[in-house]
Amino acid sequence: MPRYKLTLEYDGGPFRGWQRQGEGDSVQQALEDAVRGFCGEDVQVAAAGRTDAGVHARGQVAHLDLSRAVTPETLRNALNHHLRPRPVAVLEATVVGDDFHARFSAKARHYLYRIVNRRAPLALEAGRAWQVPTPLDAEVMHEAAQRLVGRHDFTSFRSALCQARSPVKTLDRLTVRRLDDRLEIMALARSFLHHQVRNMVGTLKLIGEGRFSVAHIEEVLGARNRAAAGPTAPACGLYLIRVDY
Amino acid sequence: MPRYKLTLEYDGGPFRGWQRQGEGDSVQQALEDAVRGFCGEDVQVAAAGRTDAGVHARGQVAHLDLSRAVTPETLRNALNHHLRPRPVAVLEATVVGDDFHARFSAKARHYLYRIVNRRAPLALEAGRAWQVPTPLDAEVMHEAAQRLVGRHDFTSFRSALCQARSPVKTLDRLTVRRLDDRLEIMALARSFLHHQVRNMVGTLKLIGEGRFSVAHIEEVLGARNRAAAGPTAPACGLYLIRVDY
Repeated sequence: MPRYKLTLEYDGGPFRGWQRQGEGDSVQQALEDAVRGFCGEDVQVAAAGRTDAGVHARGQVAHLDLSRAVTPETLRNALNHHLRPRPVAVLEATVVGDDFHARFSAKARHYLYRIVNRRAPLALEAGRAWQVPTPLDAEVMHEAAQRLVGRHDFTSFRSALCQARSPVKTLDRLTVRRLDDRLEIMALARSFLHHQVRNMVGTLKLIGEGRFSVAHIEEVLGARNRAAAGPTAPACGLYLIRVDY
Repeated sequence: MPRYKLTLEYDGGPFRGWQRQGEGDSVQQALEDAVRGFCGEDVQVAAAGRTDAGVHARGQVAHLDLSRAVTPETLRNALNHHLRPRPVAVLEATVVGDDFHARFSAKARHYLYRIVNRRAPLALEAGRAWQVPTPLDAEVMHEAAQRLVGRHDFTSFRSALCQARSPVKTLDRLTVRRLDDRLEIMALARSFLHHQVRNMVGTLKLIGEGRFSVAHIEEVLGARNRAAAGPTAPACGLYLIRVDY
């Protein structure tokens, strides 16, 4: 029973998230439908990150088992054919061992959050970034971000719906850099709490606007209270870009 | 009668091009409607480049006259408000002299053509780039592009519908570079013939695939015959990114 690892790109906009659940279309459903369309098999596709509604992926990783072996290229091309017109693409397929699990074998997840910092609305990138009209100081945001790096109790940045057993996580990297009117926030960790990246970005944005000092982020972290942090940044700016194994 | 210069971003996808003409929505129409919505005036908006259906802009320049002066910020914000939900945004508005003309004062036009060179379809950038599945050699394409730079008769790269008086143009720069699976082709000239950039890109693509040699581009140019060049590259990869005055 061959196992395949898939690297995926998708536009999260039309989906209610990765996970198949109740009403509405999901990325998981789209892939499972495509597998059925290709070979008639009912499979379950597991992913490294169960992205929320509206969150995009450039390098999500998933795996699935087929009862009959096909070449990885055949699988990739067939799934891409059957995924149409849903905005999900299989960038790569490879054969992996039975012990590979997209979620549990993952060693690190890389997220990118994109902000376009300008007054004008987004004509070309609507739904692909967070448009923030007030000027943001990216250097100050980066400085504040460094105080979140490390092993901490991230309760202040955790969604009420989070199912993780512990709020303690190790954030390996959180960087903010400006390229013209774009801000790119990169976050790297073995795993994240639910909404953790978006809640960190929402808080950094308030600091970048000058509404809070850099040091304030330590108070937010220490409070262990979601109410102490800023609002959740919109889903459309977030991209799962890479998973390391 | 104050004159305003507008810098525009738009998604060319839903428009039949810049120019108002017959049936279908145009970017010009969208702007003229927005001016009417804002102040009730019937104006004519002139642009630096009359982009074709599906061609995008990140830095198109246009101008218009109003009978009553408003601040540039007011004009920008009001037009952005009235442009909704059409995917056109005014990035900047400035007051210019009566002798400024968006089209006739332009000294140079910068175009970018984006190719995503991979097998998988575009989930996040559908309609924003040309997806080419066959491997392209960007260095060979760049080398061929250099043979088009300079003053030439570009008849081979000119659309049958081109209204320019002469097919002789000076191409100041044409560069091809690869960034991972993306190719960025930058073209700079005082002005271009109709479809010139897309026809040059369509020909360079054949060379990048190895279907023609680098030297072949000189034969194409010398032929002064549209049939000698490659097919027109799709509109969705082309962006008017800057206009110099």
